[in-house]
Amino acid sequence: MTGSIDLIIGAGPSGLAVAYWMAQYGINARIIDKRGTKLFRGHADGLRSRTLELFDSMGFAHRVMEEGYHAAAFMFWRPDGKGGLQRTGQQQSSIHASSPYRMALLTQGRIERFLLDAIRGTSSLDVERGVIGESLSYDESLENDPQAYPITVQLRTLSEAEATPAPIPGTCPYHPAPDDRDDLIQKRKHEVGTVETIRAKYLIGCDGAHSWTRKQLNIPFEGSHLDHIWGVMDVVPITDFPDIRWPSSIDGPHGHLLMITREGNIVRLYVPLQEDDEVVADSFDRSTVTLDMLRERVKKIMAPYDFDFKICHWWAAYQVGRRLTPTVNKGRMYLVGDAVHTHSPKIGLGMNMSIQDGLNLGWKLGLVLKGMASPSILDTYASERHQLAQKVLDFDQRWGSFFLKKAKQKQQGLVVSQKEQDEMQAAMQEAFVENELFAEGHVAFYKASPLVHKGSTAMATHLVAGERFPAALIRNQADGQPWWTTRLLKSDGRFRILLLAGDVRRQDQQSCLSAISDRLTELLKRFTPPEQKLDSVIEVKAIHSAPVDEVELSDFPPIVRQFDENEGWDYSKVWSDSECFWDQQCKGNAYELWGVDRSKGAMVVLRPDQHVGWMGELEDVAGVTEYFEGIFHEVKP
Amino acid sequence: MTGSIDLIIGAGPSGLAVAYWMAQYGINARIIDKRGTKLFRGHADGLRSRTLELFDSMGFAHRVMEEGYHAAAFMFWRPDGKGGLQRTGQQQSSIHASSPYRMALLTQGRIERFLLDAIRGTSSLDVERGVIGESLSYDESLENDPQAYPITVQLRTLSEAEATPAPIPGTCPYHPAPDDRDDLIQKRKHEVGTVETIRAKYLIGCDGAHSWTRKQLNIPFEGSHLDHIWGVMDVVPITDFPDIRWPSSIDGPHGHLLMITREGNIVRLYVPLQEDDEVVADSFDRSTVTLDMLRERVKKIMAPYDFDFKICHWWAAYQVGRRLTPTVNKGRMYLVGDAVHTHSPKIGLGMNMSIQDGLNLGWKLGLVLKGMASPSILDTYASERHQLAQKVLDFDQRWGSFFLKKAKQKQQGLVVSQKEQDEMQAAMQEAFVENELFAEGHVAFYKASPLVHKGSTAMATHLVAGERFPAALIRNQADGQPWWTTRLLKSDGRFRILLLAGDVRRQDQQSCLSAISDRLTELLKRFTPPEQKLDSVIEVKAIHSAPVDEVELSDFPPIVRQFDENEGWDYSKVWSDSECFWDQQCKGNAYELWGVDRSKGAMVVLRPDQHVGWMGELEDVAGVTEYFEGIFHEVKP
Repeated sequence: MTGSIDLIIGAGPSGLAVAYWMAQYGINARIIDKRGTKLFRGHADGLRSRTLELFDSMGFAHRVMEEGYHAAAFMFWRPDGKGGLQRTGQQQSSIHASSPYRMALLTQGRIERFLLDAIRGTSSLDVERGVIGESLSYDESLENDPQAYPITVQLRTLSEAEATPAPIPGTCPYHPAPDDRDDLIQKRKHEVGTVETIRAKYLIGCDGAHSWTRKQLNIPFEGSHLDHIWGVMDVVPITDFPDIRWPSSIDGPHGHLLMITREGNIVRLYVPLQEDDEVVADSFDRSTVTLDMLRERVKKIMAPYDFDFKICHWWAAYQVGRRLTPTVNKGRMYLVGDAVHTHSPKIGLGMNMSIQDGLNLGWKLGLVLKGMASPSILDTYASERHQLAQKVLDFDQRWGSFFLKKAKQKQQGLVVSQKEQDEMQAAMQEAFVENELFAEGHVAFYKASPLVHKGSTAMATHLVAGERFPAALIRNQADGQPWWTTRLLKSDGRFRILLLAGDVRRQDQQSCLSAISDRLTELLKRFTPPEQKLDSVIEVKAIHSAPVDEVELSDFPPIVRQFDENEGWDYSKVWSDSECFWDQQCKGNAYELWGVDRSKGAMVVLRPDQHVGWMGELEDVAGVTEYFEGIFHEVKP
Repeated sequence: MTGSIDLIIGAGPSGLAVAYWMAQYGINARIIDKRGTKLFRGHADGLRSRTLELFDSMGFAHRVMEEGYHAAAFMFWRPDGKGGLQRTGQQQSSIHASSPYRMALLTQGRIERFLLDAIRGTSSLDVERGVIGESLSYDESLENDPQAYPITVQLRTLSEAEATPAPIPGTCPYHPAPDDRDDLIQKRKHEVGTVETIRAKYLIGCDGAHSWTRKQLNIPFEGSHLDHIWGVMDVVPITDFPDIRWPSSIDGPHGHLLMITREGNIVRLYVPLQEDDEVVADSFDRSTVTLDMLRERVKKIMAPYDFDFKICHWWAAYQVGRRLTPTVNKGRMYLVGDAVHTHSPKIGLGMNMSIQDGLNLGWKLGLVLKGMASPSILDTYASERHQLAQKVLDFDQRWGSFFLKKAKQKQQGLVVSQKEQDEMQAAMQEAFVENELFAEGHVAFYKASPLVHKGSTAMATHLVAGERFPAALIRNQADGQPWWTTRLLKSDGRFRILLLAGDVRRQDQQSCLSAISDRLTELLKRFTPPEQKLDSVIEVKAIHSAPVDEVELSDFPPIVRQFDENEGWDYSKVWSDSECFWDQQCKGNAYELWGVDRSKGAMVVLRPDQHVGWMGELEDVAGVTEYFEGIFHEVKP
């Protein structure tokens, strides 16, 4: 019997997100997956703005930007009344002022590549592939002992045949990206057939909608199993449809078609496999669906434009299940991602929710496993992510209802007037705009908790405790380079105190900074192991509002200008919200974005996931102290 | 005895640049290097704007942007007259309107990584490491037979000891980037000691300043060996010098110090190892230089600021040699990069010249080896690159003279007045501005040749035949995405005809386009093997000046809208010079940048290296035909 601090079951995006944090915190974790290789094609493909911001903080957003399709607008098509189709509207994304990213589209296979590379960059943690759990037991009596291993799991190593999913008929051969080639070969940690019993402190089930872990935990998966069958396919379309390289939808006489532009020349198409008037078709057997049925349905909806394809990378037929577990854990065993919630893939949120679930749980688990924070902070995983999953399901329902309503009208033989059609499109566009911040992940509705202090917001009127810190382009004081905050606020496991130091040319701001520097040093010492660097648990950064050229780094106190005997002064902690002559995007307006007075500033605490945990006046060291006392164990000298 | 189409000796940046083209054209080439591994640290580090543009066309500029330091300004420091130093000026780069890139700084080791990855992405060509040439012979009688192998080279495989350079005393252990780890292990194609005789059609000597190839060819290396000894080191400085994270220079009482900011927390320092009054020191032995001597010199010059370091990645002592070969080839054996020219590393041009040499020769060689073009086009390698090497040496001399003058004045005991100092700094700044376009590689002075037609420029007043095509941000017609021309004009081996189609909403422009489409199709057929796609030798792209939304892709003729039976329509060939609502950098002003009338447009031919080969009126198919007739062999039907 071997021991593991924690065991992650499933190495999709959510499992890899948890593993990312284990690597960052240096936790001796294991991660298994039943498939013999990583995923290469198909499945999820939509990355929302907030997920890309997180990827930036993890060091690989640029890889998505290089390879993916960037979506900034959506096209609507409808019948033109003369037997044809016409473009009836364009919905533009409106978030470009507040984030470096809009939605990007790229196959899940590449996202797994980037996550794997990020994990390998900082640790020796590697996915054990072709391994399944066979039994799971839990000793509740050990639950409250942090040193105990209450979980026992039996694992079995699968053969290549067992670990290889059935090929999908009609798909073309796969030509992997050069850096994915090594992963085509199946590798095993143990010999095939090996049965291993391991004990773990924590177990994280990231094993998808049909989660083995969830079944072992006897957690129900509640909700509706909608009967409408959809087809989804990633193809290289042969078509004269004018907007085939724009994300777009057609609401035609034969049904609804959703087209999502992808990397290279790929387009993903979502198509209902029945005519609208066959909405509830009990007799329809999903297993009888073929790729040609999808092809024919798209042809019919897209007519009079041509449609066909010879290259198909992936396809599936699915029935939308809108389901949610009533709880996300049983003791120290947690569920993450699709194991907790499923909804329609068409809203482009699945992979984002899964990754953000994994990231949300991962850093908290890391802090607990390192003995730095109380296990009670893990409760916020449920309070933050479960309510959000419910909101996503509501959002999905609202979107779905537009299509459903239309289908019902048709089913009932109602003639839908032009006016009604116009109203529905207007309603859809309105819903799009209303929901954009939510869909892009810019609002998350995290509630008050030990990790989120909801107090006065007067000093930073556009910041919300619990929400993400709005991204801005600011300049490094030492070298003047403009960086997005998403990049400089790295996902490296640390909390951050941001001293929005205001106009540091003023004597009163300088005095204030000096005074709080000493007090913050004392605060950091209380929570940082004495053998570690003072900024290893909580890092203090300053972002002032004076021009880079008018102050010097040496004007700043030691807390943001630490000295290392090997590496000299730290140049990464002082930043300026000012214009940059060679980058027009860098306008020096971050303070306005955050709603902070340029003269006197404010203080903000960011959690390791860059959500605002606390905010107060620049000099409110007492307040920030109280916040951290609620999270961290004081170190013993 | 084995045969090889061509043999590249040396796998530094210039050799890899040649190999890049061999991979693109699918040439069965070999590349050897005497070192047992790639380079990881030290050596060159400066990448000029034009080199980064080329990297963008090769698919990896984003990796440099992610890892490197971006230089946009330079700081000048001088004595303050009170025993200290003061910042006396800042020189800002001014090229940001005409290129996506300014200078970037990153170790040559990473550049080699990116080049190797690009080569591996399209071919199985791999560097044979730990291999040297032992003898070389050339049969001139075979020179004019394209099928002959006039070159015979004997190669020997070295042992690990032979192929490992001596360690540099005082440097810290190397922690490779994750993707460089595999390259730390020495691998051999053949057993150690194997002697192999190979015959080659062409030989490319990319083996540096001490080129073995150059010696075999008996080509002299002419020029001065300057006696001044410099030290160079890549360190993590421990200093309170305020501009340590800006590229900067100090002209202090004890000499000149040049500081180049680098990736991470590294700074490269160039320091003269003698006081100025010891300029010609015959007794000074370079082999006696130690890292501590460099440290002490920098300490002295940087005083009263502190300076020290504990981490040194690389260092060297060198004497500037300003040398040039009188010729770049002997028959089919060519020299490239430092084997042709050496100058001071301080001007930050070495790696750029070497890479651009290799790229310049490589595509021409590719076309010749594929039998598509006459070997006479190889003569333009000499006419284009040799004159430029001479200009770089002149530029180096001009820069060097500023320091030399100062040193001389001091040596002669002249008191340099404040006014004289001010004048010299002003002169240096003026020289910087004057030379910026040259130094950044935006002007190259390529002469008229079969590859460069110098005719009327009335239709594109800001374009110059022979020069690079100025980079602009334009939008794809099919999906509206903004792309820099440097990215969309890929270095894939093809010539390109750019139809700057003007305002295609106008009927006269539409008629003109239709007419030339058919004639250009005929032209392409003459030079494209019948079994290949029509755009495989020369690609036609259109860049029109109408807004994306006001025209449809289907408005364009077949030459820029090709149909493939497997992949459907080609969406990569029609572009619009218009504004983009989500990208403020994309202003729709490319026609103005190129000096082209927005209504009636122009036609431009770009060579595979994106230099302008020909330009004329939009309808001038006769002119463009004549240009290509001078380069390509007509294919036999």
